[in-house]
Amino acid sequence: MNIRIRAGKKEDMPSVYRLIQELAEFEKEPDAVELTLENLVEDGFGKAPLFKTFVAEIDKNIVGMALFYPRYSTWKGPSIHLEDLIVNQDKRGLKIGSLLYAEVIAYGYKKGVKRIEWAVLDWNTPAIEFYKRTGATILSDWNTVQMSEKAIKKYVESLE
Amino acid sequence: MNIRIRAGKKEDMPSVYRLIQELAEFEKEPDAVELTLENLVEDGFGKAPLFKTFVAEIDKNIVGMALFYPRYSTWKGPSIHLEDLIVNQDKRGLKIGSLLYAEVIAYGYKKGVKRIEWAVLDWNTPAIEFYKRTGATILSDWNTVQMSEKAIKKYVESLE
Repeated sequence: MNIRIRAGKKEDMPSVYRLIQELAEFEKEPDAVELTLENLVEDGFGKAPLFKTFVAEIDKNIVGMALFYPRYSTWKGPSIHLEDLIVNQDKRGLKIGSLLYAEVIAYGYKKGVKRIEWAVLDWNTPAIEFYKRTGATILSDWNTVQMSEKAIKKYVESLE
Repeated sequence: MNIRIRAGKKEDMPSVYRLIQELAEFEKEPDAVELTLENLVEDGFGKAPLFKTFVAEIDKNIVGMALFYPRYSTWKGPSIHLEDLIVNQDKRGLKIGSLLYAEVIAYGYKKGVKRIEWAVLDWNTPAIEFYKRTGATILSDWNTVQMSEKAIKKYVESLE
């Protein structure tokens, strides 16, 4: 089987968007995707693109994607955040995920970033074991904190 | 006491850098700061700035800072990551941290971001309680994964 990894283009975004929806279903939150396909295209291919992607193709069909963007560590310097790495449910086990992952890490290496970072659900043992084998470190003593759009509005109004 | 919050400028970076070092000491990792002051200035005020800051001043002395940058959620859209929020050890208890925090959230609101995100150490109960009171959610089932510069090099070399 001929798997090709390449940079994602504007016309790939419908396939990328479908993969995002598929991941939300896998993570048991199918209704959490408020983003539209139009938003995704605008945010990734407008004047100030907010992310880059790599896509995995089999026979010109997109079966996987990795989406990432720059971050910054005040201890180390410029870094990359891998936001999503998704492979079609029926294309698992073909090492497509590993190929996309390797492409992102190699991209970071070429750019000279000081760190690559991402998040993993603590019940996703196969993923955690894979990351560890590749030399990544799991920081289980850090919790993620999020303020939603609704909570932001409520808090800002409470300040006035 | 007259506390003033304003956007950080290039000439504030020596004070911001001192605060970064102070936080590393508080987190029991004084040697973890590999970044130099020159790196910080270049990364924040070069052609493609990687972050913005707010600083807190008392009588023209910088006693606190918040450092943040854009991120992206494939579920919600554009977001902000608050990387550091630091107040001088001897200026704690004056609500300076709350003022900086409010400034960042208000900035995100003005920009129309869909989420503001940051990380907290799971033993930092006072911070966690403060965040919850302001409407933030703690996601304790997500672990942070990091690949260091050294590990990136080793992994990429193993692919060849």
